[in-house]
Amino acid sequence: MKMIYLKDLLEDAEKYLEQEILIRGWIRNHRKQKEFGFINLSDGTCFKPLQIVYDKELEDFDDITSINFGSAIEVRGTLIKSVGKEQAYEVKAKEIIVLGECSETYPLQPKRHSQEFLREIGYLRPRANLFQAVFRVRSLAAMAIHTYFQERGYIYLHAPLITGSDCEGAGEMFQVTSFDLDQLKEKIDYSKDFFGKKTSLTVSGQLQGEAFAMAFSKIYTFGPTFRAENSNTKTHAAEFWMIEPEIAFCDLEQLMDIEEDMLKYIVTYVLEHAKDEMEFLDQFVEKGLIEKLHIVLGHKAARITHKEAIDILQKSGKDFEFKPVQGEDLAKEHEKYLTEEYFKSPVCVYDWPKDIKAFYMKLNPDQETVAAVDLLVPGSGELMGGSQREEDYDKLLKRMEELGVSEEELDWYCNLRKYGTCIHSGFGMGFERLLIYLTGVDNIRDVIPFPRTPGNCEF
Amino acid sequence: MKMIYLKDLLEDAEKYLEQEILIRGWIRNHRKQKEFGFINLSDGTCFKPLQIVYDKELEDFDDITSINFGSAIEVRGTLIKSVGKEQAYEVKAKEIIVLGECSETYPLQPKRHSQEFLREIGYLRPRANLFQAVFRVRSLAAMAIHTYFQERGYIYLHAPLITGSDCEGAGEMFQVTSFDLDQLKEKIDYSKDFFGKKTSLTVSGQLQGEAFAMAFSKIYTFGPTFRAENSNTKTHAAEFWMIEPEIAFCDLEQLMDIEEDMLKYIVTYVLEHAKDEMEFLDQFVEKGLIEKLHIVLGHKAARITHKEAIDILQKSGKDFEFKPVQGEDLAKEHEKYLTEEYFKSPVCVYDWPKDIKAFYMKLNPDQETVAAVDLLVPGSGELMGGSQREEDYDKLLKRMEELGVSEEELDWYCNLRKYGTCIHSGFGMGFERLLIYLTGVDNIRDVIPFPRTPGNCEF
Repeated sequence: MKMIYLKDLLEDAEKYLEQEILIRGWIRNHRKQKEFGFINLSDGTCFKPLQIVYDKELEDFDDITSINFGSAIEVRGTLIKSVGKEQAYEVKAKEIIVLGECSETYPLQPKRHSQEFLREIGYLRPRANLFQAVFRVRSLAAMAIHTYFQERGYIYLHAPLITGSDCEGAGEMFQVTSFDLDQLKEKIDYSKDFFGKKTSLTVSGQLQGEAFAMAFSKIYTFGPTFRAENSNTKTHAAEFWMIEPEIAFCDLEQLMDIEEDMLKYIVTYVLEHAKDEMEFLDQFVEKGLIEKLHIVLGHKAARITHKEAIDILQKSGKDFEFKPVQGEDLAKEHEKYLTEEYFKSPVCVYDWPKDIKAFYMKLNPDQETVAAVDLLVPGSGELMGGSQREEDYDKLLKRMEELGVSEEELDWYCNLRKYGTCIHSGFGMGFERLLIYLTGVDNIRDVIPFPRTPGNCEF
Repeated sequence: MKMIYLKDLLEDAEKYLEQEILIRGWIRNHRKQKEFGFINLSDGTCFKPLQIVYDKELEDFDDITSINFGSAIEVRGTLIKSVGKEQAYEVKAKEIIVLGECSETYPLQPKRHSQEFLREIGYLRPRANLFQAVFRVRSLAAMAIHTYFQERGYIYLHAPLITGSDCEGAGEMFQVTSFDLDQLKEKIDYSKDFFGKKTSLTVSGQLQGEAFAMAFSKIYTFGPTFRAENSNTKTHAAEFWMIEPEIAFCDLEQLMDIEEDMLKYIVTYVLEHAKDEMEFLDQFVEKGLIEKLHIVLGHKAARITHKEAIDILQKSGKDFEFKPVQGEDLAKEHEKYLTEEYFKSPVCVYDWPKDIKAFYMKLNPDQETVAAVDLLVPGSGELMGGSQREEDYDKLLKRMEELGVSEEELDWYCNLRKYGTCIHSGFGMGFERLLIYLTGVDNIRDVIPFPRTPGNCEF
């Protein structure tokens, strides 16, 4: 008899009703009574476990009652309509076999554990309800992103991870070497290293993305990026995934349309495909999560310039910890006020002061601001950061000079402006930041399967 | 008037026929006659360029004739049926505007360049026909893989890239550090490094994949992996992407089913979605490419044990450079004979001698072989390598001891066998190896957007 995974079984439950089935999975709960036993079985293919009922008619009733929580078992039985309210279906067992016992030392007990403790057992935590929900949402959100872009004709670019350039901006980088650092005795000679030069882990695939956009018009990256920033906060990780679309013949206005459209697509997709998971997260992690997401679906994002944003904040009468100042960055509390109190919707803040933005952003005619946009969402603040890129060779070089960016290292990037340049724009979205927003989980360590943070590189 | 990308235009050509349209793109070819001009325009959203016809009626006819190959232009005109045989539609231009000129120094001229030269201009080569085809196939194949697994309920796992473990096997690793190696004067003190320990770039996500399979039953990874192997061959790269599915309650037989099913799905998807690209590759890169792929679609893979494979090779009467020997690995020429001459189909070779396979593979009852399988395909040889994993704690530890694998470092991995262990299997497929097979391109450097190989880390 062929085993069936629970997702396939329950999606087609009417077909299997009153039929004999063979299922396997892990015991998530086990209650024993004198004449009956109840097992909540999960194989992880769907969020809710399936209830298995067994009774004294089974020869090995007593042995079965002693099977530990966490054990892998095989169940042969009949799928029936459940009399309980908790579930629509259950299985009346004819045979229950232990496949893999679970040791008494199992650290993951059927009770509420702290998230700190669960991080310590990172290889087991995907079995806990919270992480069953979070990592399925992670998987589905990734698929939503791929589907969104591929359906619209974007080319998926695998930007390189190891880079010889250290001028992409955005903070500190990890160095990569094939030297055995234990054996390194004298000054490092990069000419003898694997790549014959100093190399690091990338902080962004944008520059390569622009090269591809000049060939395919619409491209996106979705890959890991790295920061060697020694920040032990809830929002920093050393290794995380980024999505960076880049679009030729697209200006800032159109970029904002794409950002918003993509966000709505992802939210819709996740709400549809992870109903049980989202309800769990709404109930136990962030009350009102689903409603928060529906606000995004139901509203067009407000669009204001950075100057207008500061004006609004200054006139708000709010006693901000950080005073809003023209020409300066927005603080978390400012983003919160704009999205949650003032507009009660996502907000695109565009035309930023050039001095606080990167060299590749297009200088506006006012010579003071750049065509950059941050998309802020209620609950999470900045979710995406993008800009129209400077497509003029001379202006780009001038900005690089002003900001001390090496022209020599980026000559190829500058050359894109000599060989059929055109208006183009792109944005970056941290995948984990999106997940924090989608799941309500507040610590980046809990939306990454095996997080890497200062002092932590386990499993 | 709203611009339309060529893919959207041509997919809906009948709707736009005789309508005025606005398009943008790059000049791929420009032929001028006395009264007429013909521009092949591409925006990279579809493989074939669109022909633009303009004539003397345009005021700036002479200026237009002088627009360089490679320039970005905007065309306003009418979509009409083409009288030529080359294309179904063309555009009669009413206005042609230069958006970005292309310098005379443009290295990518409209002629055949060597692949070596194109690698040197890696930031421009995606504009060349070959790479338009290859990188669109790459993108579509990635989507095919995601779609295959997601439709079947697999969870996409982002396995970590930076790892503290160096015992995953499979060769040399890059070290990762946040120390500035230029400044490193004394013996390295890993306790002061970013993660407080020695860290490297991963060679495989399998072990973490197993942890997730014990929670979600069906998972797959699709991410970058790294090898610091100093091999300058056509098949080695330092950075490449791998797909590693891992499935609980799945034995070797079922694993072979999945491998074959997935391969057929990807091939079908690419043939359907990249028709023009595949025809180009068939014509200019590997004659018979499409037929080769159809052989895979039309045949069930042969399944033979490693012992049977060696028997067949020994009895073949072939004068192999490397003599086939029981207990030893298969050489490229052996794979070629089995797939292209003997079976004329894909071949699964399973039950390999334990001494040439990894510690985590399940020992067969004969105590001599492990439940491993290599899937070989005509034209490329080994495409996937997989195995049933040793799910027994004691047996796993014994194998690790025999092979000198550190139990301490992998205690968490071993523990998976204590907490509800079960039969499970998985395989790995190098994404670039798949692409070499799908495109007929013979050098891994030409299927990776920005390849990293010994001495090469450009762009």
